[in-house]
Amino acid sequence: MGMTHLRNLVGIPGVRMRAVADVRLEAAQNGATVVRAERASDDLDGTIRASDVDAVLISTPTNTHAELIEMCVRAGKPVWCEKPVALTLEDTRRVVDVVESSGVPVMIGFMRRFDPGYAAAKRKIEAGEVGRIERFRAISCDFTPPPLGYIRTSGGIFVDMLVHDFDLARFLVGEVEEVSAWGSLLIEPGYADAGDVDTAVAMLRFANGALGVLEGSRRTTWGYDIRTEIAGSRAKLVIEAPQKTPLLTSRDLGYSGDHYESFPDRFAAAYRAELDYFFACLRDGTPPAPGVRDALESLRVALAATKSLKEGRPVRVADIQ
Amino acid sequence: MGMTHLRNLVGIPGVRMRAVADVRLEAAQNGATVVRAERASDDLDGTIRASDVDAVLISTPTNTHAELIEMCVRAGKPVWCEKPVALTLEDTRRVVDVVESSGVPVMIGFMRRFDPGYAAAKRKIEAGEVGRIERFRAISCDFTPPPLGYIRTSGGIFVDMLVHDFDLARFLVGEVEEVSAWGSLLIEPGYADAGDVDTAVAMLRFANGALGVLEGSRRTTWGYDIRTEIAGSRAKLVIEAPQKTPLLTSRDLGYSGDHYESFPDRFAAAYRAELDYFFACLRDGTPPAPGVRDALESLRVALAATKSLKEGRPVRVADIQ
Amino acid sequence: MGMTHLRNLVGIPGVRMRAVADVRLEAAQNGATVVRAERASDDLDGTIRASDVDAVLISTPTNTHAELIEMCVRAGKPVWCEKPVALTLEDTRRVVDVVESSGVPVMIGFMRRFDPGYAAAKRKIEAGEVGRIERFRAISCDFTPPPLGYIRTSGGIFVDMLVHDFDLARFLVGEVEEVSAWGSLLIEPGYADAGDVDTAVAMLRFANGALGVLEGSRRTTWGYDIRTEIAGSRAKLVIEAPQKTPLLTSRDLGYSGDHYESFPDRFAAAYRAELDYFFACLRDGTPPAPGVRDALESLRVALAATKSLKEGRPVRVADIQ
Amino acid sequence: MGMTHLRNLVGIPGVRMRAVADVRLEAAQNGATVVRAERASDDLDGTIRASDVDAVLISTPTNTHAELIEMCVRAGKPVWCEKPVALTLEDTRRVVDVVESSGVPVMIGFMRRFDPGYAAAKRKIEAGEVGRIERFRAISCDFTPPPLGYIRTSGGIFVDMLVHDFDLARFLVGEVEEVSAWGSLLIEPGYADAGDVDTAVAMLRFANGALGVLEGSRRTTWGYDIRTEIAGSRAKLVIEAPQKTPLLTSRDLGYSGDHYESFPDRFAAAYRAELDYFFACLRDGTPPAPGVRDALESLRVALAATKSLKEGRPVRVADIQ
Repeated sequence: MGMTHLRNLVGIPGVRMRAVADVRLEAAQNGATVVRAERASDDLDGTIRASDVDAVLISTPTNTHAELIEMCVRAGKPVWCEKPVALTLEDTRRVVDVVESSGVPVMIGFMRRFDPGYAAAKRKIEAGEVGRIERFRAISCDFTPPPLGYIRTSGGIFVDMLVHDFDLARFLVGEVEEVSAWGSLLIEPGYADAGDVDTAVAMLRFANGALGVLEGSRRTTWGYDIRTEIAGSRAKLVIEAPQKTPLLTSRDLGYSGDHYESFPDRFAAAYRAELDYFFACLRDGTPPAPGVRDALESLRVALAATKSLKEGRPVRVADIQ
Repeated sequence: MGMTHLRNLVGIPGVRMRAVADVRLEAAQNGATVVRAERASDDLDGTIRASDVDAVLISTPTNTHAELIEMCVRAGKPVWCEKPVALTLEDTRRVVDVVESSGVPVMIGFMRRFDPGYAAAKRKIEAGEVGRIERFRAISCDFTPPPLGYIRTSGGIFVDMLVHDFDLARFLVGEVEEVSAWGSLLIEPGYADAGDVDTAVAMLRFANGALGVLEGSRRTTWGYDIRTEIAGSRAKLVIEAPQKTPLLTSRDLGYSGDHYESFPDRFAAAYRAELDYFFACLRDGTPPAPGVRDALESLRVALAATKSLKEGRPVRVADIQ
Repeated sequence: MGMTHLRNLVGIPGVRMRAVADVRLEAAQNGATVVRAERASDDLDGTIRASDVDAVLISTPTNTHAELIEMCVRAGKPVWCEKPVALTLEDTRRVVDVVESSGVPVMIGFMRRFDPGYAAAKRKIEAGEVGRIERFRAISCDFTPPPLGYIRTSGGIFVDMLVHDFDLARFLVGEVEEVSAWGSLLIEPGYADAGDVDTAVAMLRFANGALGVLEGSRRTTWGYDIRTEIAGSRAKLVIEAPQKTPLLTSRDLGYSGDHYESFPDRFAAAYRAELDYFFACLRDGTPPAPGVRDALESLRVALAATKSLKEGRPVRVADIQ
Repeated sequence: MGMTHLRNLVGIPGVRMRAVADVRLEAAQNGATVVRAERASDDLDGTIRASDVDAVLISTPTNTHAELIEMCVRAGKPVWCEKPVALTLEDTRRVVDVVESSGVPVMIGFMRRFDPGYAAAKRKIEAGEVGRIERFRAISCDFTPPPLGYIRTSGGIFVDMLVHDFDLARFLVGEVEEVSAWGSLLIEPGYADAGDVDTAVAMLRFANGALGVLEGSRRTTWGYDIRTEIAGSRAKLVIEAPQKTPLLTSRDLGYSGDHYESFPDRFAAAYRAELDYFFACLRDGTPPAPGVRDALESLRVALAATKSLKEGRPVRVADIQ
């Protein structure tokens, strides 16, 4: 994804690629060549603090996000960072404190908000076209299950994967008050070693009275299955990409189109749009969103779901402190 | 289809099944048993003239339609008859003369007009929702090619098959002034013996200035392919049944539904609705439509297309006399 | 619905309409006239026991179902009855005992099983096309909220409405082991008087490990919203009627079709098919399904959901005795 | 479109933006700033001949294409140029001669070939998935009619607009042997001054026996309406973008998505892909396509259609010399 973000940076008005830094110098040099950055470096700290660097994009392993964000903020450099900020509440909260007390703009990459479908849904909701929201529904299924090694440190299905849906729930409907979640291990028995499930469902109760349901799976045979529905007193919105390629092919009796395989293709436009937005905010002086506080709140919902899954009872988000 | 029509008669309010007549008595008896008609007979003429028979439904070979309609009209019995009235202009015109001078209600089974999609399209057009019609597009493809024996006496692809589209063109857009048609023999080389093509295209010029295109084929591998489009100054209508069964099944990446295979399943509702309408007209004293004049006019367009195909030049419908 | 069922009876092979009985004689006479039954009566018991009556269809208020089914069974008459058998576990269980000890065929009208979409889904599941089922998802929303008077005696949103989805869950996936349900009152505040909610969500845990989510609402502005999804190790099935009329109309930029408004139009084919099947079973000597035991088991799931909603915790179906 | 092409150049591997040239220096400077080209100039010839310029992209008024392509070819610089090469057969043929005798790679921007839908269709056809092609169908409608000033010099609806469909017909099916075309003036009566129509239909006869139909319009109220269908002995392909934004919104009973408005949004990916392909060809030494000969052949079909429209009779493409 780092290379994808770099390429997306290239066309943004006013962005000049000063440096690509990576602890592996060769990787930094590769990236710098592709996007014609002025220099490559294996000195992250130095690069962040360099005087010709005005803003920083962080695309690194999850466990480095918190430290790097703090490094940028201390240097007074606006930063865009891939989600998540951190996997624990404590680490995330510490970053929130640092960021909020600094006033430095920090944006976290919950890219789905910038998908044309979700963005249009948000506009319709804000324009009152949906009326009072009554129900939220989300499904998120990956096409290919991640390896056990990833699962061991991911924080679990709610924290690493369905957190995107919790972010959308908060973005489109409002704060979540209570979560109830169940899980099953039906696909990758080996995940038991990491204490994780591969199939999960959850119910959400929102502060405004709306209710929601959520399904997640680590594997499908029919592609990357992402669909969100918002039902309200005036209308229903369905955010779903019907087919990837504008081509239908007859097969037996009937037609079929193709489907997306993964987030890089389904959300290609969103990855571009979120960076465009970040730099537009810097130019305009608008605080970019979603920020670290959003990451914190969505993480709390994910942790409530994880706790509910373990304890077999509904959990209030307020109890996740 | 006879049995289908009989079954459709059963549920119509006010319809009592007096008699089923067929030159083969056994067939008549079978039909009478299934629909609990009061009697079966192999005497068509006697049955038509029977004093307890108030109206007649004709579902017989094409070459008997004209004579049977005339028999009914002479007996003063309202009649519903499968299309076509006849394959030649002369025979059709003679029936039109007999029917129109008699005042007896006669309806011809261009059932597509009664499909919920086409009927709704007509209502929208009449309500002005489409505005001035600019373009007409139709495609009609059968799933399975008919045997050569049928082709020999069918009148050709325009007269036996695409006449349904000419009827829809007249129903939805208006009278056709000129036709230009081409054909190819790509599927069933044996049709050459009957002088027919299996693949055809045509252009239509309507009296109101609208233009149309038409495609037809005797065979597809993806089902019964019927789609009609009406584009106007205010809106476009697409009449098409998207899938037969309300079920999508994932296949590889993507989903597919199933498609209709033939007219009896695609137009099942239309076959019921046209008979409902015929008897509603009889009850109300409204002249039923489409009638024999519609059959004549659509046949003229089909004959113009046939002539155009043979002569390689546009043909005006007015020249088909 | 009584009249709909009567009309659907008319075309079934081998069915002769002996009598229509109703406690209001005039209603019975109306029905008898429309379907040409041989007689009308206000004596339900006498009609059921009449020697020329071989089978009985019950379409009466819910609170009479149990008694009428028992009456038929005592008379040895096979019976088809609208769902539910009864609103309480006790009453339903008593009928199950009576029916099962009698051996008289009894079928209950969970018509969705006979919708072409659900029936095809069942066939695909049984043929192994879906593989091991991992997730079930259902949404059921009525278009127009029922009056408070109905709500007072309906048994609540899970018992009167979402029981259809519990029946489908059992039909397509298997027995439900545990339910967790939440509800909100967002649409019809007056329902508070009946202690009911108008918006509900639930999670289902199946005995085979699959998980499910369910949404229900008493009102939408976009039609009768019924969709069911089955996701398995090999494929996903989506049962949903995409549009009612085979017509798309352009509106602004884009097209829209129309949607069903209510169960009589969405499930018209299912209502016909379930009666066809009932009589086919009688002819073949096959026990018809779903029967009273299915009604009992689906009711238990609905009662578990109702209990979960009230107690704010998951409820095991085994605890509903 | 010039700016769009410039932006698309930015991210292509190995492409360095040397110069932006425009007869209006200010426009050149604007472009150079946006894409960070090394210099801006109002000297087209000098820029083309500059030693550090290895390849040229031409995005200028149609009447300058021929001369600029020739200038590039004489300088030995590979060139990508917007379609068309020229509006007359003579001018186009002259460029073909110059290009073909030079061996310099020249690619013409018939971008639809690079849309993911059309490109996938081509692959399926070449893989034999469609079998023998029997029918081609295309519709191309603009959303907003161009001003009369454009129409006066555009060459007419077939040459400036439907030439894209003729190019697709040749790309997907094969060479066109004969065309028959009709037109009407239904939308913009003022086009009569330019001798053009705003609504057109045509039939195509391909050398391989396939038949085609085509519809075109200068205006719709429902968006940019582009759909192509290829029906063959094994399958049917439908190339159509079902909706622009991955969002369905309920409206009354039913849902609607939005549609594209014009070529820059519908074919955004294609505009990027064609330039990617051009430079990939230069790197690999593959001759890029479509080239000037394709432009010539598609123009001949368009001119045959124009002649047919004027003369009211089918015209063979071989007669357009």
